[in-house]
This record gives sequence, structure tokens and C-alpha cells, in this order.
Amino acid sequence: MINKQIVLASRPEREAHPGNFHLVETPLADPADGQVLVRNHYLSLDPYMRMRMSDAKSYAAPQGLGEVMVGGTAGVVVASRHDKYEPGDNVVAMGGWQQYTLFDAGRPGTLRKVDASKVPLSAYLGAVGMPGVTAWYGLTRVIAAKAGETLTVSAASGAVGGVVGQLAKLRGLRAVGIAGGPEKCAYVKEELGFDACVDHRAHADAQSLARALRAACPNGIDGVFENVGGAVLDAELACINDFGRIALCGMIAGYDNAPIPLANPQVILRSRLCVSGFIISEHMDVWPEALAELGARVAAGELKYRESVAHGIEAAPDAFIGLLAGRNFGKQLVALV
Amino acid sequence: MINKQIVLASRPEREAHPGNFHLVETPLADPADGQVLVRNHYLSLDPYMRMRMSDAKSYAAPQGLGEVMVGGTAGVVVASRHDKYEPGDNVVAMGGWQQYTLFDAGRPGTLRKVDASKVPLSAYLGAVGMPGVTAWYGLTRVIAAKAGETLTVSAASGAVGGVVGQLAKLRGLRAVGIAGGPEKCAYVKEELGFDACVDHRAHADAQSLARALRAACPNGIDGVFENVGGAVLDAELACINDFGRIALCGMIAGYDNAPIPLANPQVILRSRLCVSGFIISEHMDVWPEALAELGARVAAGELKYRESVAHGIEAAPDAFIGLLAGRNFGKQLVALV
Repeated sequence: MINKQIVLASRPEREAHPGNFHLVETPLADPADGQVLVRNHYLSLDPYMRMRMSDAKSYAAPQGLGEVMVGGTAGVVVASRHDKYEPGDNVVAMGGWQQYTLFDAGRPGTLRKVDASKVPLSAYLGAVGMPGVTAWYGLTRVIAAKAGETLTVSAASGAVGGVVGQLAKLRGLRAVGIAGGPEKCAYVKEELGFDACVDHRAHADAQSLARALRAACPNGIDGVFENVGGAVLDAELACINDFGRIALCGMIAGYDNAPIPLANPQVILRSRLCVSGFIISEHMDVWPEALAELGARVAAGELKYRESVAHGIEAAPDAFIGLLAGRNFGKQLVALV
Repeated sequence: MINKQIVLASRPEREAHPGNFHLVETPLADPADGQVLVRNHYLSLDPYMRMRMSDAKSYAAPQGLGEVMVGGTAGVVVASRHDKYEPGDNVVAMGGWQQYTLFDAGRPGTLRKVDASKVPLSAYLGAVGMPGVTAWYGLTRVIAAKAGETLTVSAASGAVGGVVGQLAKLRGLRAVGIAGGPEKCAYVKEELGFDACVDHRAHADAQSLARALRAACPNGIDGVFENVGGAVLDAELACINDFGRIALCGMIAGYDNAPIPLANPQVILRSRLCVSGFIISEHMDVWPEALAELGARVAAGELKYRESVAHGIEAAPDAFIGLLAGRNFGKQLVALV
């Protein structure tokens, strides 16, 4: 059997482009003792992958050249030589950009069985997966959001941002999104139920964006869940209240090595802010609690999400490049089956 | 009796200059019931005063035009109509830039009696006063410094910075100072006992300063106590370790309204940093514990400090302008007696 895989062919200088990726076809081995073969039904595409493509210092080891691109997957066991798994099991794992993955199932944290009866399998890569837990942790632990406060979240229609704002609303906050374009903003407000959403594409600079945010946040901003950085973050900081908390989850504006200086760091001192970077994989202790809430809320219809689905592993590079440019709408997936 | 006072005559556009200040002579009233008249022996000059001179949004209400400049003072009670104070008492207070101050002594926190037998009166404006408590709080609570870690502190020969490094050494950290000029650096290393001190004036840009810091911090930087900002902070962040903590105490580089963008905020995310601004007057709960340690260490000779003393209230504006330019050496005081 042949396994189609996407490997990293070269590192992007600035923007990632199709030539950075290469499709290879590799014969699939049978599982050895303790191994499990999974057919990946969905591949998750996430902005963090862009950082891994560079060899600049990062929190994760860079993706090796010639190696299969790293990525989260949801799939079904097709063959098992591990007594905890059997064919037909739904599993979530870091299967990478490929159709099949052979896992050493005994290594802790490698495979997570999931119940696809109440929550769709693909949701375990989004609202009930890493993006959802990222939203939950940043909101409840880093920002420590309290009812009555105002929260802004950038990339608000994305997999993380959409969950942040909905959880904030469920906790009694005012949730204001920032997204690119009127269609995404309408979705954030009307479908996801945010109080407001500001279109950053309608503003030429941070000053103009800040004026729009001020109008959307009449009591100022207490918490910032940041996925973008650059002018968006500058604008949010221009509206921040004393003792505001900023959770830095992503800075997609700088992923192509564009400089994104913070214009006015004095505000951190002046308003006694706390700016914290975090990476959800370093907080595994919260996953059970977060996933329990997220799964229950998705099953109950209280937590909505949207997916952009590309089809076939060959489509992954273009879908990923589109994600970095904001052309996706909601959680970007690649369906592999 | 006549009281000489310095009032704020105008707000500086960029650098503060002598024309922003005005000397007035005001007749002194006798204390009314509940009031205490204090002769100020020392006036403390501190960088935060520059922020108060502007009417830009700040954590403190701006200093009013025509009002006596705000400032900490140490002095002696000369007349009292409050039963807790009597002539001869040594007291510390916010007496302002003037020779005498009439206090409503019953208002909590207005006057603090101090014992000048083991610690000199002037030290209550420095190592055993607001600057010392600022150092103590930033180091132990914001940075939460641990033995074996490396700490950098800018303005290391100053009233706050000198205490930060000495307390860090006493707690088993590697303490690396940043100061302006070889004389200050020699003092920081040889007199105060820091492990190293880097002269920021010897470096043309943040990259060059970062190389020098890297050499002085072979295990990287775990904690930053920031008094300066700008290129100094950029250089420190270029050497920071994962999970580093940055206590923003001052950003004197930006006090004259010069832009001091943070070049690379991505490092906050990448290295999962926590950047916190703080103001010591909002943490009154720690003052007793901090002052107890600071007083004991000064009395025991374990905590050293240096003072620059200008003489006479007329000298205060020039001394303050010199402080902002780094021309002081250690704690800047004005002796009024």
C-alpha cells in the first residue's frame, strides 16, 4: 500500500510558497509489535506550523528538511498490534501531513481515543481539540477573565478566536472580535454571538483601528487574546484599561519574518499590564477539564464553529498558504478520505 | 516665616528644562488642630516625577500647573497639634519640593515616623524607602527570582537598581548590571558586588549591547528588572531564556516622549515570557516586610548605597534634570537644611 506524504522541501525566506513543499509516495509497512496503523481522515492546518518551517530559534525544534510536515490528525485505526486499540477506533494524534500514520501506541500521549457519536470527528481538531483548549486556557488562566469585563480577540473567526469569544460570552464578558473583512465580521457577530466585531481591513493604521475598537469597547479593554500582533495589538493596547491582561497566543503578522515592533511598550508600565506568552502543549494538566467543557458545549449546541475543508493531501500546501493569508474561514482542515 | 517652594510652571514638550519650574516664597501658616509642621531635611528626586509633569495619560494624576512639585521628603517635626507627633520626631512623607510642609497628620499614611539612630535619615528616601521597596517587590514578587538564576538590572548604579542587584546576590543569583559609563560600572561591580556590569554607552545599538550581555550572562537571562527601556530592553530580550520574567519598573528612555518601540515582541510568545508593569504604591501590603529586611541590611552594612546630594531647594530643578540625563551617581537627593 502506498502512503502519500507532504515533506518540507525548503525553508521559506519570507512568505511560505508551494515550492517549500514536496509530495512523496512511500510504501506503508505493516504494524510491528506495539504499533497501530491509523488512516487519517482529517489533517489540521494551524499557524504554528509556519514557525516550525523556519530554523530560527523557536519554542519547538524546527521541522526537519525532507521530513513529513508535522500536524494534528483525526482518524480511524485500520490495523493494531497494541492491545488497547482495535480497528475502527476513532483516534486523535500528531499524525502529520500524510494519509496514513504508523504509531508506537505505547508511548504516553501518542494516541487519544475519542467518541465521535456526539461530537463530529473533525471537531476534535478544532473546538474540542488543541485550538479549543488553547482558547480555554488563555481565557480562563492567562487572562483570568471575570464577568463584566471586556475582552478583545483577534482572528476572531478562526479556530481559536471563535471559541475564545463564545466562552467569554458564556462567562458574562463583553466579547469584541477583530477579523478581516465584512463577511467574517458578520459571522463573528451574528453566528457566534460576539457583541461586536471590528474589520481590521477597513483601517489603514493602528490609530484608525483603535478608534473603531474604542467605539466597540465603551468601557475599555480588560483582556486581550492575541493571535495576530503588529498594528492589531498596537490598537488594542491603545484602548487597554489599567491592570489589563494580554495573552499572547500567536503573532501571525510576524510569521513571514516581517518586523512587527510594539509601538508603545510604555503602556505596559503605565497601565500595569501583564503580557504573557503561552503554548498550550506545556499545560497538559488543564486538557481534561478544558476538553470536558468544550465537548459538552459542542454537543449541547452552545459552542459553534465553522470549518474550511480542502480535499486530498495534495491540497494541503495551498490550503496552508491560504490560512496564513487569512483566506480560510473558520478551522482549516484537509479531508483525506 | 517664609517657605520656599518649587512649582510646576509649564509642561515640557520633550526634555524637561529649568523654565518648567518656578521658585515661589509663601508665608507659612501655623498648624491648625490635627496638623503637624515638618521641616524637610531631604527631598528625594525620582524619575517618576518626569511622568507627572506631562498631562498624557499616566497612572498618576498629572502634577497641577502652579502647584508645588510632588516628592518624597524626610524631615523633622517642628510644631505639632496632633497627639501622636511631637517636635523632634523624624518623619518621612510626601512633602513636596519645599522647605516646610504642613500635614494633616490624622490622614492614614501621611506621616511615617522613622528611627534615625541606626539608619541615616536620608536612607529612608533611598535603600530603606520607596526605591528600596520597589527593588524588593520587583525582585521577589514580580520576577520571583530563584537562587542560581541570572538577573539583569538597568540603571544599576541608581537608587533602585543598586538595591536590586545586591538583594539578588544575597539570594544566590548571578546579578549583572547595566549602567552608563565606566565609573558607574566599576562602582556597581566593585562597591556593590554585582558579578558584572555592562556599559551601555560603549555600545552603538541593541545588537552590540546584546553581545556584551551574552558574554556577561553565560547561562542567559532569567529575570530582567527594567528601569530604562528602549535599546537596553531590546538587548536584554535578545538574551532571555524561556520562561523569563520582566519587571517593568521604569522606562526612562521614553520619558521625554521619544518613541521607544519594542523591536521584537515575538520573543514574548516564543520564549513564553511574562512582562509585567508595576507601581510600588499599589502594593502597600509588602512595605512592612520589605522595610524590615532593607533596614536590617543597611544597619548591618550588607546593603550599600550612594547618594548625590544637591544643596538648597533652588538647586532641585537642575539636579532633577541631571537625574533624567543620568548625571547623578546613586540616589539623587536635595539637602534642605
